[in-house]
Amino acid sequence: MTPMDTVRAFIGTWTDCDMDAMLAMLSDDVIWHNIPMPPTEGKPAVKAAVDAFMANIEGCYWEVHAIAENANVVLTERTDNFTFANGHTASIRVMGTFELDGEGRIARWRDYFDMGEFQTGFAAAMGQA
Amino acid sequence: MTPMDTVRAFIGTWTDCDMDAMLAMLSDDVIWHNIPMPPTEGKPAVKAAVDAFMANIEGCYWEVHAIAENANVVLTERTDNFTFANGHTASIRVMGTFELDGEGRIARWRDYFDMGEFQTGFAAAMGQA
Repeated sequence: MTPMDTVRAFIGTWTDCDMDAMLAMLSDDVIWHNIPMPPTEGKPAVKAAVDAFMANIEGCYWEVHAIAENANVVLTERTDNFTFANGHTASIRVMGTFELDGEGRIARWRDYFDMGEFQTGFAAAMGQA
Repeated sequence: MTPMDTVRAFIGTWTDCDMDAMLAMLSDDVIWHNIPMPPTEGKPAVKAAVDAFMANIEGCYWEVHAIAENANVVLTERTDNFTFANGHTASIRVMGTFELDGEGRIARWRDYFDMGEFQTGFAAAMGQA
């Protein structure tokens, strides 16, 4: 698989809501950085953060608008759509960079988005706004 | 020039603060969309927005952390640094997508960043916070 294929497959694990498959594609020392927030370091910390985030989520659909690779780095432009347990939906417009290690695992993941858009949309979907 | 070369040159016009050269690289019907804000459509509107933004700015240095191309589309991960007339500086962490038309001009430009980070940093640099 090319790095771009790997990242497409990784995005597919999110759309399948298959968090075990998602975590299996990360390196043990992965750093996941949602840029407006502090980075999350190491697979156990990522798993804990994902478990907390996914607790209220029943479905995901991540649209890829653009994707390109340069050596082991893949850049993406996406809309990440989520469906909550209450049936409401929320979306975030985002770009993300993925850096793969020598074994094709995702070692660095940085997503850029507007925190206000995220908080407003997700609070409304969860009935908190 | 490859699309990636074109976008590197475009980023160079910003670092040179050469707004005439920057505008010359845009298509007439360019759409510039800072994602947290409404899009700016057409070169005259882009020029007006840039003139307003640059009124207090004396220098720019845009760092490219990652860049990749896929056909006529180039994705970038950057830190855009600005120096104000009062000597203060501000930076914004950003990813952006550039779509080139058949003549190698930038026809679509979408930047993703946290509006809160932008507003806080730039207000502080201008002495407004």
